[in-house]
This record gives sequence, C-alpha cells and structure tokens, in this order.
Amino acid sequence: MQRFFEYNWQVRDEWFDWCNQLPYEQLVKERSGGVGGILYTLFHIIDVEYSWIRGIQGKEDIVINFVDYHSLEKVRSLSEQFQKEIVEFMKINLRERKMELVNVPWDNDTYTVDEILHHIIAHEIHHIGQLSIWARELELKPVSANFIGRNLTNIKPRW
Amino acid sequence: MQRFFEYNWQVRDEWFDWCNQLPYEQLVKERSGGVGGILYTLFHIIDVEYSWIRGIQGKEDIVINFVDYHSLEKVRSLSEQFQKEIVEFMKINLRERKMELVNVPWDNDTYTVDEILHHIIAHEIHHIGQLSIWARELELKPVSANFIGRNLTNIKPRW
Repeated sequence: MQRFFEYNWQVRDEWFDWCNQLPYEQLVKERSGGVGGILYTLFHIIDVEYSWIRGIQGKEDIVINFVDYHSLEKVRSLSEQFQKEIVEFMKINLRERKMELVNVPWDNDTYTVDEILHHIIAHEIHHIGQLSIWARELELKPVSANFIGRNLTNIKPRW
Repeated sequence: MQRFFEYNWQVRDEWFDWCNQLPYEQLVKERSGGVGGILYTLFHIIDVEYSWIRGIQGKEDIVINFVDYHSLEKVRSLSEQFQKEIVEFMKINLRERKMELVNVPWDNDTYTVDEILHHIIAHEIHHIGQLSIWARELELKPVSANFIGRNLTNIKPRW
C-alpha cells in the first residue's frame, strides 16, 4: 500500500515537471472528460487524497478552492505541504487500523480504512491516465506510468 | 494487493458491458493517446496482466495477437479464460514470494514479485482512466472508477 503512495507521489512530481513546458492557457484549458483540465486534475488528486487522509484521522475536512491555487507553483507547493503531513500519518502502523470504520462529512456511507487507502491510490492512478491522453492530444510525450524500474523514496521502512 | 485485482476485474467487466452500446467501428476506431483504441486497450490490459503473471510463475510467455481477438466477445472471453488461471495462481501465498526476483523475456531488468504485482495493478487503472476520457468524447458516461462502495468478489479469504 505504502509503495503505491510513493509511486503516485513520484509520478505526480514528474507531471509537475512535465507541466513546466506548457503555457498557462494550456494548463487551465477546459478539456473533455475527467475533471476537465490538466492543472485542475493535479489539484483534485491532492485535494481528494488529503481529505480522505484527514477523514481517517478523524480530523475536520478543510475545503480548499481551486480559485486560490490557480498556478502550477501554488498547486505543487500545496502537494508538498500535504505530503509532509501524510508522511507523518503513514508512519503509524496502518495495518492495525485496516478494518476500522470511517465516516466522512461528504459521504453518507461508512468505509474501512483499508478501502479508503485503496480508493485514494486508484483515484490518482486513474486521473493520471487521463493526463496522458491530453498530453498526446498536445503532441507531447506523457510521463511514464510504469511502476517497475522506479527507484522509490521510502516513506518509512517497508511494512 | 488482492483487492486491487478484484477491483480491476470488476471495473473491467463493467467496461465490457459498457462497450455493448458501441458500434464495432467505435470499438476499433483509432484514438489519440494510450494504446490507441477502446477494444485494443482492453486486450492490452489482459495481455500485459497475463504475461507478467506467467513471468512470476516462471512459465514461457505466450504471444497473443490482437488480430485474432478482433471482437468484444473474443476479448471478453480471453479475459475470463486468463482470470480463471490467475485466480488459481493467487490462491498461493504471494506474501512469501514478495521479494523473489523474476526475469522475463521481454525485459532486460530483473524485478521482484512485489514490484510486478504493483505494476500490473497500476497498469490497468492507468489505461482504464484513458477509456473514461474517450467515453466522454463519445458523449457517454464512463464506468465509475470508485474503489469505495464496491462489493468485490473475493479471490480467496483476505490476506
């Protein structure tokens, strides 16, 4: 589970680097499908991950608005800020909490910690796949999505 | 890990159902990005998953050609056939083999079983994200990618 977070964060960072080559209009241009744009996809991934992690922690949801993060630098900096908190959270033994039930304010259903962690991981990979379609539409090579062959930065020693 | 396979297979099946509404030309139409088409994406996911699983098992790679599976029914039936084999394989204790090194004929590098399983999972979610963009381009609602709220069919009792 932890390795998927490491993978997602590495791939996300590569997409931030990739975005540097785009003019601002392309970053915020409305596109078909997904959440509708490149920069907004990155913002959305970060927002969703952080909200669910806070949900697992029983912390109040913090609503962040895209209008306040309307540049690549701001979204990247938000990503780094939240990652620091999530790294701290992931140092606890999540395995022991896997079956614990979680309620969040934006959903009427109750989910286990394990389900939510799977959800966060799949959510990011899904949206990153969409970025790669838009990259090709711009006639640019997308970031590799390969899991194999990566040198991942360990959040903590492997479970 | 196992739950991600269950998730991927359930989502894949929903995409097969979703594909039923499309005329054949749309299934095989060349599209921008990814592996270039809807039916070929599904074929590619199945092929890659099966090849790596055979690789982990030390079995010879079987080359399958899309030209022999040029219909929705054939691709779906291939998926079901391979899944049966993979379910059997996953009943062994994969945890014990996590750090085992694997060589495959199509790659010069060596990977652990754990890395390969992560790779297969991320590979499918990534490509499914691309299908959802193409669905919107066709003005159709894509299959949900949510992990939460699914009633997954257990391959075997949870690890």
